Amino acid sequence: MITYLNGVLIKEEEAMVSSNDRGLTLGDGLFETMRVRDGILERIELHTNRLHYGAAYLGIPVPLNTAELDRALKDTLVANELEEGVLRLTLTRGAAGRGLTVAQNNPPTLIITAADMPKSPDPANAWIARTISRNEMSPLSQLKTISYLENIIARRESDAKNANEAILLNSKGFIAEATIANLFVVVNGRLMTPPIEDGALPGVMRANILSQLDCIEASIKPQIFSEASEGFLTNSLSIRPLVSVDEAPLGNGTVGSVTKQIIQLFG
Amino acid sequence: MITYLNGVLIKEEEAMVSSNDRGLTLGDGLFETMRVRDGILERIELHTNRLHYGAAYLGIPVPLNTAELDRALKDTLVANELEEGVLRLTLTRGAAGRGLTVAQNNPPTLIITAADMPKSPDPANAWIARTISRNEMSPLSQLKTISYLENIIARRESDAKNANEAILLNSKGFIAEATIANLFVVVNGRLMTPPIEDGALPGVMRANILSQLDCIEASIKPQIFSEASEGFLTNSLSIRPLVSVDEAPLGNGTVGSVTKQIIQLFG
Repeated sequence: MITYLNGVLIKEEEAMVSSNDRGLTLGDGLFETMRVRDGILERIELHTNRLHYGAAYLGIPVPLNTAELDRALKDTLVANELEEGVLRLTLTRGAAGRGLTVAQNNPPTLIITAADMPKSPDPANAWIARTISRNEMSPLSQLKTISYLENIIARRESDAKNANEAILLNSKGFIAEATIANLFVVVNGRLMTPPIEDGALPGVMRANILSQLDCIEASIKPQIFSEASEGFLTNSLSIRPLVSVDEAPLGNGTVGSVTKQIIQLFG
Repeated sequence: MITYLNGVLIKEEEAMVSSNDRGLTLGDGLFETMRVRDGILERIELHTNRLHYGAAYLGIPVPLNTAELDRALKDTLVANELEEGVLRLTLTRGAAGRGLTVAQNNPPTLIITAADMPKSPDPANAWIARTISRNEMSPLSQLKTISYLENIIARRESDAKNANEAILLNSKGFIAEATIANLFVVVNGRLMTPPIEDGALPGVMRANILSQLDCIEASIKPQIFSEASEGFLTNSLSIRPLVSVDEAPLGNGTVGSVTKQIIQLFG
């Protein structure tokens, strides 16, 4: 694959960054994962808007204007002859010396990597993380940052339970999200998802579903899983059925009819 | 300076890592900052013990045994002819493809960078962060990880207030620590510091002070700053006087006598 690195298209295995990059030393950056379908980058504006919002919050300059960023993404896509796949954009505060404070004009690092479309994941058998809760009070819960270690710990916990995804509760015990996806359930025929205020990342696919379907944003506790008839997880790459939680089937433990419709519409 | 990178000593500006390194993509790693004094690495065992503890928790293999790690650190020190300075060790889960789960045998990345001793920092005029609280419930609060963005946000907040350090409170409003240091206060002649359970990072210098001096570990609220006669911040590099908080002087706003003694003993 070909990687875009600070303005240059280069073989992925030759795309190297300084070992002093703040992304590497301090998790100081943001990322976006974007789906390529039929050679087209999906929802590019929603992704770049979120990137700009996060970068402004963190005070990391985006080194390209909107048109240049679009061009860099499309150049990477074309260089990889990608028809079905994934682009990941990573923006860090760039290489810098010791200390937390960095000069405003420090050159950031912008990386775009490409990957073939992964095969559709198996339906999710999820485990509710006990070691990690999502801190809905933290600004980080609303930014897609590379300080991602809490979600990795949660996923390691679900791996150890032979589950294939972890669900994160927030500090008050309400459901926030999964480690790489937002979560939806169907209860009494009504589609529900946790609100951003409960620690759900403002996912691009989540926003897409909310804008097009009748869905309630409501604080929900894990007890909902015993009442729900079905559930699914969403991110920019897929709609993934959620068929069990903590080793108990969700609904009848198969892919539900609402989920199938959503996959048809958005998957 | 010379950097150690996965077994090789190399010029710092040539020490490059893959743009797919999990440190860079997901903040998936740990670090240690160590002081070099008179050509000797201080408290090496406490640092490498903490590294091993964190690595075991995160399931990141440490690629060197204890003797080899000591040797790598000392080789880096010698290569830089470092008499007074800093070594920073960074361990990440290494380069990997997409997805949170990584094979157990994925080769980690081990980096040791060297720097000259920074000049003694000015006394700290601290600001209590409002945007960020430290989540004392998270296992991350007890690990020195590179998912460090919350502390960077807190520091950006204190920078904006023309303070030179930020103090983090935990989810219950108790003092946890500063962004790169533990915090001590002197109240009625008694030395106090927040307990680990309140979100204080188990700092090596903190442990050193606790083992040698009469110091109370106690949950303390910010109101303590109006009662304290003096305060200071500690990390592996320095003991730094804390002379004001939220623009109000701490004690009489100068470096206190206990702080001076501690600097004599440990600084």
